[in-house]
Amino acid sequence: MQATLFRHADCKAQPLGNGVTRRVLAYDEKLMFAEVRCEAGGSGPVHSHPHAQNTYVLSGRFLFTAGEDSFEMGPGDSVAIPPDVPHGTRCLEAGAMLDVFTPMRTDFL
Amino acid sequence: MQATLFRHADCKAQPLGNGVTRRVLAYDEKLMFAEVRCEAGGSGPVHSHPHAQNTYVLSGRFLFTAGEDSFEMGPGDSVAIPPDVPHGTRCLEAGAMLDVFTPMRTDFL
Repeated sequence: MQATLFRHADCKAQPLGNGVTRRVLAYDEKLMFAEVRCEAGGSGPVHSHPHAQNTYVLSGRFLFTAGEDSFEMGPGDSVAIPPDVPHGTRCLEAGAMLDVFTPMRTDFL
Repeated sequence: MQATLFRHADCKAQPLGNGVTRRVLAYDEKLMFAEVRCEAGGSGPVHSHPHAQNTYVLSGRFLFTAGEDSFEMGPGDSVAIPPDVPHGTRCLEAGAMLDVFTPMRTDFL
């Protein structure tokens, strides 16, 4: 087994609609990075998946909903989302988040 | 199960020596974030662990070694490191990385 480097410039941005783009970065079977950029007013609809997810806010401000909770997040704030907990986000100020999944999201490739 | 928010300001920085500090951010059993800040010339000695690790460079420049490989990383670059692969880093320009582990590092708490 070897480490694998992923240069940001080599990872293509995929438009998801609603002012959101996703760029899959470093991944292997156990862990996957997805950098999500949002315009102000952009949104990711509430959804759930069997993967555990942690999210770190890189820049901007986001209104995050997860289960029964709703909270605003800014740079450096992070959240741990257990498997199957419904969650979604609305972008209050343009910015980016790093979503991390275990295991990897094969549906993102 | 519920999502758990971790405010950056509430997560204490822990000095590790060699110009490096670590701040554990969002975590649960399956995933753990650790934000690592380095001064130029700071270093993290080569080590390994049974946890899978992905690392994302938030700012600055780092010389990364993993297994037989060595590469420079800048903002947005990321690396996937399988379990038990020896790795270490030297900071070329002051900055920060986000280390992500699965499962969580109980030794970090």
